[in-house]
Amino acid sequence: MDALSSLEVGYDVPAATGARLEEIQTPALLIDLDAFERNLERMRRAAEAMGVRLRPHAKTHKSADIARLQIERGGACGISCQKVSEAEALVRGGIRDVLVANEVRDPVKLDRLARLALQARIIVCVDDAGALPDLSRAALQHGSTIEVLVEIDCGAGRCGTQPGEPARDLALRVAATPGLVFAGLQAYHGPAQHIVDPAERAAAIAGAVTLTERTVALLGEAGLSCGIVGGAGTGSFPLEGRSGVYNELQCGSYVFMDADYERIRAADGGRPGGFENALFVLTSVMSRPAPGRAVCDAGLKSLSTDSGLPRVFDREGVAYVGVSDEHGNLSDPGDTLRVNERVRLVPGHCDPTCNLHDWYVCIRDGRVETLWPVTARGKSW
Amino acid sequence: MDALSSLEVGYDVPAATGARLEEIQTPALLIDLDAFERNLERMRRAAEAMGVRLRPHAKTHKSADIARLQIERGGACGISCQKVSEAEALVRGGIRDVLVANEVRDPVKLDRLARLALQARIIVCVDDAGALPDLSRAALQHGSTIEVLVEIDCGAGRCGTQPGEPARDLALRVAATPGLVFAGLQAYHGPAQHIVDPAERAAAIAGAVTLTERTVALLGEAGLSCGIVGGAGTGSFPLEGRSGVYNELQCGSYVFMDADYERIRAADGGRPGGFENALFVLTSVMSRPAPGRAVCDAGLKSLSTDSGLPRVFDREGVAYVGVSDEHGNLSDPGDTLRVNERVRLVPGHCDPTCNLHDWYVCIRDGRVETLWPVTARGKSW
Repeated sequence: MDALSSLEVGYDVPAATGARLEEIQTPALLIDLDAFERNLERMRRAAEAMGVRLRPHAKTHKSADIARLQIERGGACGISCQKVSEAEALVRGGIRDVLVANEVRDPVKLDRLARLALQARIIVCVDDAGALPDLSRAALQHGSTIEVLVEIDCGAGRCGTQPGEPARDLALRVAATPGLVFAGLQAYHGPAQHIVDPAERAAAIAGAVTLTERTVALLGEAGLSCGIVGGAGTGSFPLEGRSGVYNELQCGSYVFMDADYERIRAADGGRPGGFENALFVLTSVMSRPAPGRAVCDAGLKSLSTDSGLPRVFDREGVAYVGVSDEHGNLSDPGDTLRVNERVRLVPGHCDPTCNLHDWYVCIRDGRVETLWPVTARGKSW
Repeated sequence: MDALSSLEVGYDVPAATGARLEEIQTPALLIDLDAFERNLERMRRAAEAMGVRLRPHAKTHKSADIARLQIERGGACGISCQKVSEAEALVRGGIRDVLVANEVRDPVKLDRLARLALQARIIVCVDDAGALPDLSRAALQHGSTIEVLVEIDCGAGRCGTQPGEPARDLALRVAATPGLVFAGLQAYHGPAQHIVDPAERAAAIAGAVTLTERTVALLGEAGLSCGIVGGAGTGSFPLEGRSGVYNELQCGSYVFMDADYERIRAADGGRPGGFENALFVLTSVMSRPAPGRAVCDAGLKSLSTDSGLPRVFDREGVAYVGVSDEHGNLSDPGDTLRVNERVRLVPGHCDPTCNLHDWYVCIRDGRVETLWPVTARGKSW
């Protein structure tokens, strides 16, 4: 906490350690440490029971502190991220096994990635043989080795080469390229994570598993084995985990949860995994302009509404009904809210919400235990 | 540029000065300096022609550099912002006349505000007499004076007391409170800014003008004059500016523009003000996974989609059709986009988009001229 003690509460950080909820400058991003630790433990046990590795996605939290805890306490073999600048932040924060689960094509970014591979195991995705010359050149120039996953489009319709023969041919090219090591397949079905109907979600993942399984078999016939067959998210991981095809899960949101994944869990009978809300935006009531209505200080710049409005936590009868840039409109038919009262909001979508804040305010037993910086906040390049 | 030279291009900043567009690490937030300067000048002349003052809203840009230019070159008398932490960042950046166009109720925030008033003219809004004791106590404790606008709800349905008698009674209470100075009315109609139909928008503002005018008259009868009658935004300012009631305009988006305000301008026959696109998110093509489709590296964490998807700038036939956290799906029926090609996006909504980035990359004649930090990025408390 030494580095923190030089920071000014209010301007630099939203709270001092030891502060009570009512003393936190709002809006602030809260972690309930007990719930967070239970989520870590639940996922550790789930992966262990399924006999697969866990490589949690740091795109959710962008925090080197949380990534370290996922490895030290949460059973993770390494960390996933999406951007080179995130990988840089994680390696600077002490993480030594990082997958950039994404394509990287810019020559300057490839140079940064190859330098990083001198300090840590670095794995990256390709979906096009045109990527290989620049990637190889960067690795050779720095004398580093970059591991490569061939990304297949297993139904998500975003990046990725076609499964089957095109993926096999690309993998053979990777294996033959100096400075690169073929490490396996990236087979993530993003949209499936958010399908509320469990049967539809299972069908989407079954399709992904079939395409991935066939590609793994073709690679085997060509003499290539997949150290990593990676994918899955918080919405679908038991399906990939039990498939016998995937061996690394890349779930991110499980540490925090959000209102979107709650809807999916509810449809699923509380499964998968029974994760708890560990992340909140703490907001204060700043105006009571009319009966039945209150205005709070958390708007679009403190919570992302791409997956819907936040849910008010643990406060019967109060709802967040309208968002503007710096305000939230709360309906409060019983007029129970007082000015300056703190209210916890469960964000609609945790990942882009965390990316709005500089600090996690970590609470236990109603007090601030510590603050963690959002290490890679804004690192999108 | 001395402070910048110690920063690492790639990790710390997205570009060096002198760099070409193709060398900028993406996604990055671009300002076209020529267009930006023309926008400053257009608004300066518009306010001058209407005989009203300009107090531009820094919630749009959160930049002390831009606020300074608005005052030095753009004719502004001072700056508006929404949060105490923004005011702190602006005062640290040299701005000496700051309106927090919002209610502030937390005692710690009021203490911060009163301290700030020792260094700069500070104006804040109230909509409830319950706010006055804490505000007065903070001012008296620091020996500073805080100017107060009574905020009225002139149709926006967010904060604000009722116009007319309730506003007059609150103003009289303010005027009688030690440490505070009654400075006028805050009468901003936010939703009206985004009404596309010009007649409907004019009707909404006409309603606001009537309510404000009546309140000003009541205050006059009670012996209170309004130094400031403030409000207006980029969508409506000619209406408030010519009303004879408002004397300070708080427009923010005019310096940058965005896709939402473009729709409003188009419906308005290019008015109000003829402002140009000066703000872009620069993105790179990172994958060409299928014919007719490309994937770029700017998603939800680089542009806010609350007011719709971004518009592709100056690139015939290409459209941004789908967003995920770190990716954008581009439709490109002619297959014209190459991997690593830079594309400019006009964000749907400029304010929350700027709040996602750490740096403005300021370009002129195709080169990076300078970088400006987004001084108050994330300062929402």
